[in-house]
Amino acid sequence: MARRYDTISFLTDYGTVDEFVGVVKSVVRDLANHVTVIDITHEVPPFDVRAGSLTLARAISYVPSGIVLAVVDPGVGTNRLAIAVEVGDGEGVLIGPNNGLLAPAVAMAGGAGRAVVLSNEAYQLVAPGATFAGRDIFAPAAAHLCNGVDLYELGDPIDAELLIPGVIPLPRNEGLALVTEVLWVDRFGNCQLNVGPAEVAHLGDRIKVTVGELNGAPTTRVAAMSANFAELGTGAVGLVTDSYGMLALCFDRRSAAVELGIGPSDQVVLEPVGDNDPTAAPALSIPVNLRINR
Amino acid sequence: MARRYDTISFLTDYGTVDEFVGVVKSVVRDLANHVTVIDITHEVPPFDVRAGSLTLARAISYVPSGIVLAVVDPGVGTNRLAIAVEVGDGEGVLIGPNNGLLAPAVAMAGGAGRAVVLSNEAYQLVAPGATFAGRDIFAPAAAHLCNGVDLYELGDPIDAELLIPGVIPLPRNEGLALVTEVLWVDRFGNCQLNVGPAEVAHLGDRIKVTVGELNGAPTTRVAAMSANFAELGTGAVGLVTDSYGMLALCFDRRSAAVELGIGPSDQVVLEPVGDNDPTAAPALSIPVNLRINR
Amino acid sequence: MARRYDTISFLTDYGTVDEFVGVVKSVVRDLANHVTVIDITHEVPPFDVRAGSLTLARAISYVPSGIVLAVVDPGVGTNRLAIAVEVGDGEGVLIGPNNGLLAPAVAMAGGAGRAVVLSNEAYQLVAPGATFAGRDIFAPAAAHLCNGVDLYELGDPIDAELLIPGVIPLPRNEGLALVTEVLWVDRFGNCQLNVGPAEVAHLGDRIKVTVGELNGAPTTRVAAMSANFAELGTGAVGLVTDSYGMLALCFDRRSAAVELGIGPSDQVVLEPVGDNDPTAAPALSIPVNLRINR
Repeated sequence: MARRYDTISFLTDYGTVDEFVGVVKSVVRDLANHVTVIDITHEVPPFDVRAGSLTLARAISYVPSGIVLAVVDPGVGTNRLAIAVEVGDGEGVLIGPNNGLLAPAVAMAGGAGRAVVLSNEAYQLVAPGATFAGRDIFAPAAAHLCNGVDLYELGDPIDAELLIPGVIPLPRNEGLALVTEVLWVDRFGNCQLNVGPAEVAHLGDRIKVTVGELNGAPTTRVAAMSANFAELGTGAVGLVTDSYGMLALCFDRRSAAVELGIGPSDQVVLEPVGDNDPTAAPALSIPVNLRINR
Repeated sequence: MARRYDTISFLTDYGTVDEFVGVVKSVVRDLANHVTVIDITHEVPPFDVRAGSLTLARAISYVPSGIVLAVVDPGVGTNRLAIAVEVGDGEGVLIGPNNGLLAPAVAMAGGAGRAVVLSNEAYQLVAPGATFAGRDIFAPAAAHLCNGVDLYELGDPIDAELLIPGVIPLPRNEGLALVTEVLWVDRFGNCQLNVGPAEVAHLGDRIKVTVGELNGAPTTRVAAMSANFAELGTGAVGLVTDSYGMLALCFDRRSAAVELGIGPSDQVVLEPVGDNDPTAAPALSIPVNLRINR
Repeated sequence: MARRYDTISFLTDYGTVDEFVGVVKSVVRDLANHVTVIDITHEVPPFDVRAGSLTLARAISYVPSGIVLAVVDPGVGTNRLAIAVEVGDGEGVLIGPNNGLLAPAVAMAGGAGRAVVLSNEAYQLVAPGATFAGRDIFAPAAAHLCNGVDLYELGDPIDAELLIPGVIPLPRNEGLALVTEVLWVDRFGNCQLNVGPAEVAHLGDRIKVTVGELNGAPTTRVAAMSANFAELGTGAVGLVTDSYGMLALCFDRRSAAVELGIGPSDQVVLEPVGDNDPTAAPALSIPVNLRINR
């Protein structure tokens, strides 16, 4: 007997200005009244499959058992496939277009189990146009799975090895330098890199950071390693181990993206600090004493 | 015995920066703990009743049975009426200001049944100011209906024919030309027109599109009819039958609104392609072969 | 036996572009499946504790019994304390950083009862970095309280008098003038002041309003007292008693913030109208007659 689910985690590039997100939730509600939908985000930049896949990969460890519905889908209405992929022996099912969007999250969740192409029109809405697969194909599939319909009812099985992979850039060593890339700029301007703290441990507590166009004038700063933002002190760049365990370029209450002029996919070179490099601004540590009432 | 409801579909021009939406949901939660609220959108442009009414009309076919709570209300606190209108023999109730906002959705839902002015203060919150009817009048009405209070308890019956109608612009023929109007620009820049594909079928697969000020320099392009965006090819304008069955001016991964310089309410003229008109960029069709594992 | 809760009201400066809000809700869902989360807002300006505390104070009278989870937390990961504070004899619990964010809402809710520092790591998530306390410390605390865990299980009691207070500016009299401050500019541009109508009753129905830099050229207008926006008439500034019972500078369908060039924390001087002051534009009253069908 097939498993039932009661949570759908939902990510798109739909934005919330139009009614798209609300209509998808309405379709789910109409078909599966018991389900709670959790919005991961709907502000993936339009058509940006890379950004969507990285957001989903960051969130996937935290989403509850159930369905993940993800739609960043510039190929909607073409012959790109609509798919559903089980992970964790059916503890979760990821639904979306077969364009690499789901792949990093599937890998983070332990890899694909059963997978189908959503080809069974009996589980889809009839629609006057082909441009809103979220409403007409993906949402009904999610709702029917929540109701206990088996994955294989939704369409033809597909070999998970045939699914389009995602692309996550790897850092590379060039002599003493580690050449990294900005994966993500968050709301606060923190710039997550594609390396963790272990990969730069040999560079010490202060690291030379170079950003900028290969043929333009690069910017070089010395960044202090820090466990948080506030201790960096005003105006000093730091390398903070972020909440996902990756290194991020950060300032205290300022946007590193703005201060350094960088964004997603930009290159960042990390190197040992040399004798002639400027000293990083000293970290400010503000002792706070508050009596605990035991 | 009156019907109970468990879903409220919610549309406003409140935005989500202030606490307005959250406070309305709090009032509902406090009065009717069993209700799920689905946000259609809260980003209707401030005071834009036309945009709100069109968004609601697009969504109405998909919202679940229950209450629709819609607030775009520049006349809040004046003697404009607050109303509730049944549709579908009580399967749904639309609540909002009597300014035309609800009218197109009511018509799409089959027309008005019973209707009342929300005049019974026993079902309203006492408030220190009159400017937040969503919180003080509309949300309590929605919650009490969900709890099984009968519509006629909420206030005085009003003849549905007295409700202020909405305005949806009609296309018109001028010789061989069809003069249309942009109803809606979505997040992706697609420009929905007030005509469907049947109305331009006589113009063929390629249609001459003219936009621009009547006294300014108009822009003319040839648009290919297409079932989706990706097949338009880079830089070519298309006319796509959108997910609501209307024609929309579209580009592949670009904003038609930006490319053509048009927005809501702007005029778009559709005509047969003449001998001297430029040819539309040919559609790109990318064959993709993926082995299905049967 | 400890109380259980089923609602979490949620306010942050996280924005909704990243996955932060969705991940917090996922953690709550995973630990306490029965809970409904209501978003107050997540668009508090980054790091703006003052704005967040005022938003929370406005909303607090309306949020249902249960947990309030509030995070505007520039000191995350430092030795600033994470706290939970009971109000209303346990009818509600406010959770957040000890930086003044919660204080005005706690005061509005009748003052603090029991309070703890969230120091018990058994009720926290293990995390690779210290920068997402919303996910790792605050959300689990909220979920465990909803499940019936007693407040004192979550950490060490702290004297509520030691909590960092919030700051709400008071108006002051200077001769005949009342010197006020803009607390909040809402989506529509209405500028809420830190005075209510009773405090200006002696100034009459028309009040002289002066804004502008102390050393710059001030702008002076005469504002009519009004119960709503529409009756102000086009282009006339008014003083409207807003939905929280405070005076707000308003225009009809225009932004007072834009028209007057003011924003949060800016000074506004209210004075009696003098003989040489320009007359306020007369209010427009549009009679509307609609037959009620009794």
